[in-house]
Amino acid sequence: MSAPFTSGGAIGILGGGQLGRMLAMAAARLGLITRIYDPDPAAPAALVAAGHVCAPWDDEAALGRFAESVEVITYEFENVPLAAVDALAALRPVRPGRTALATAQDRLEEKRLFARLGLGTAPFAPVEDAASLDAALRQIGTPAILKTRRMGYDGKGQARIMSAGDAGKAFAALGGAPAILEGFVTFTTEVSVIAARGLEGAVVCYDPGENLHEAGILRRTMVPSGLSPVRRTEAVLAAGQILTALDHVGVMGVELFVTPTGLLVNEIAPRVHNSGHWTQLGCAVDQFEQHIRAIAGWPLGPGTRHADVEMENLIGDDVGRVPEILAEPGAMIHLYGKAESRPGRKMGHVNRLRAG
Amino acid sequence: MSAPFTSGGAIGILGGGQLGRMLAMAAARLGLITRIYDPDPAAPAALVAAGHVCAPWDDEAALGRFAESVEVITYEFENVPLAAVDALAALRPVRPGRTALATAQDRLEEKRLFARLGLGTAPFAPVEDAASLDAALRQIGTPAILKTRRMGYDGKGQARIMSAGDAGKAFAALGGAPAILEGFVTFTTEVSVIAARGLEGAVVCYDPGENLHEAGILRRTMVPSGLSPVRRTEAVLAAGQILTALDHVGVMGVELFVTPTGLLVNEIAPRVHNSGHWTQLGCAVDQFEQHIRAIAGWPLGPGTRHADVEMENLIGDDVGRVPEILAEPGAMIHLYGKAESRPGRKMGHVNRLRAG
Repeated sequence: MSAPFTSGGAIGILGGGQLGRMLAMAAARLGLITRIYDPDPAAPAALVAAGHVCAPWDDEAALGRFAESVEVITYEFENVPLAAVDALAALRPVRPGRTALATAQDRLEEKRLFARLGLGTAPFAPVEDAASLDAALRQIGTPAILKTRRMGYDGKGQARIMSAGDAGKAFAALGGAPAILEGFVTFTTEVSVIAARGLEGAVVCYDPGENLHEAGILRRTMVPSGLSPVRRTEAVLAAGQILTALDHVGVMGVELFVTPTGLLVNEIAPRVHNSGHWTQLGCAVDQFEQHIRAIAGWPLGPGTRHADVEMENLIGDDVGRVPEILAEPGAMIHLYGKAESRPGRKMGHVNRLRAG
Repeated sequence: MSAPFTSGGAIGILGGGQLGRMLAMAAARLGLITRIYDPDPAAPAALVAAGHVCAPWDDEAALGRFAESVEVITYEFENVPLAAVDALAALRPVRPGRTALATAQDRLEEKRLFARLGLGTAPFAPVEDAASLDAALRQIGTPAILKTRRMGYDGKGQARIMSAGDAGKAFAALGGAPAILEGFVTFTTEVSVIAARGLEGAVVCYDPGENLHEAGILRRTMVPSGLSPVRRTEAVLAAGQILTALDHVGVMGVELFVTPTGLLVNEIAPRVHNSGHWTQLGCAVDQFEQHIRAIAGWPLGPGTRHADVEMENLIGDDVGRVPEILAEPGAMIHLYGKAESRPGRKMGHVNRLRAG
């Protein structure tokens, strides 16, 4: 995307949910055009983008048309099929690239990466069948969590094993899919680092946020977190190592557990991240603009934070509270334009200024 | 627009320039849909809106289709033809209403309003022909400025009269259009109040900004301004009086001159205003969202400012500086996606955090 500053280059976004929508809006602030690829005709991002290719992920002709209508392609979710990415990558740069995507799609590869980089992570072992599950349980002990290697999201595709006797049932619950057994981690808090890496390899991190979950879904993120200066530095350095090792281009969310003995990297998301929404109120350049800058080959923003912020997700019926939130001083509300509210569905979020 | 919080009501915007574009993006943040009416097929707002009716202002069928596709209609520029507004208003609410629009379209009516409210303004007199120009010059003296009553913008449609001998030439330069003669005002600075009035009559003002112009075009706005607390209060109260008198619904920019003897109201713009762009970085609810809230009948945001900001317009070749601005800490850049840069054309703006 050379000299795109006046002419409005076009960016393709795979996935048209709220993350794609906020990416499209950030691109628009920079004078860029976006086109969305999403099989869902009601994709919320389509309403703020210049185009929407509504086709299945295996429609090669549609993927080809889409690629040819843009200059660079990115994605808003890590479960975009690798075959689609490969077809697109033959025609246009796809950023972040295949390595980051393939690693994030496989919990085992992810954990192996953390271990290879010398980063703390929960004890883990691969599980392919009953025999390897037995071996894994002997190595890790109980309680433990059995997770599918692929396609997990917000607590789905997981089963707890409280004692060895639960093992068979847990493996069956996952339908026999290739899995990973992870040891239970006793942590005090979860933090995440929203990090960005530019095309030239520079890495910029935002201040880590502290996350609160309810029923497996992110509820709140607070910045600054309660991390000590030492841990804060460790978290940021871990993120920098991961993005660099993956030759990542764009924003990545890196989740870490804070334990009494140190940080453990939990997982990565090779995309803009719910726990980075606070940057919309706290930073001159938010995570969405940062991602667009990175994939467009533009200089990254500094990641500087000028305000303390608490982000609250509006989930399901939380949208009923919108009228009162609109009247709150220091509250910035974002609604995703989804027609229907359902339990557990992310409908919007609020960023609130925190007293300093 | 009842209970639009999840379902995405539709807002029609007359005019698809950068102001319409930023209004559309603010509406999208609130989960709302926008449709643009603009005769220009390359209207920058169309790329971020759900629809674009591209038709002349006198195309009644197109206006009708447009009105029927939305729930409420607003505009981004004050020179939208009143006939079009009247045709639309028969079908859907148009906010701000006709009174505010008609007043802002006529410099004489505007000045008469200020005088009626007891607000200071430059000396003025109506000019319809050579005789009334002579009378006006005798009343006001020279130097003075002759301005057309209608369709003035960024210094166009104006002629200076340095001595009575210039009068004929100045009147001819304006093509004999109905005009207003204004006395020269010696002012130290120009400030503007970005004010909003809700459907129920509540008024919320942002902190006044101090404006610097170059060649008749706004160059910078700084907040806070150098106004004394007393003058700041006067400015905000003047804005409140004006919005209330006009039964205005939405955002209005009120420009005032600061003189050694007090404030003089210069002019109003019944819409979001270039000198209010700083709110995008300094406030949780910016002027664009505030306008959308007002016309949708939602509660207004508080107008609270949490950061000191300087806004700089990027005009014409200024876009060449974009790469270096992207690397500045604390700078938030907005580019309007205009294909061509021309001298004097507003291509974007930068909001910069000021050291507190």
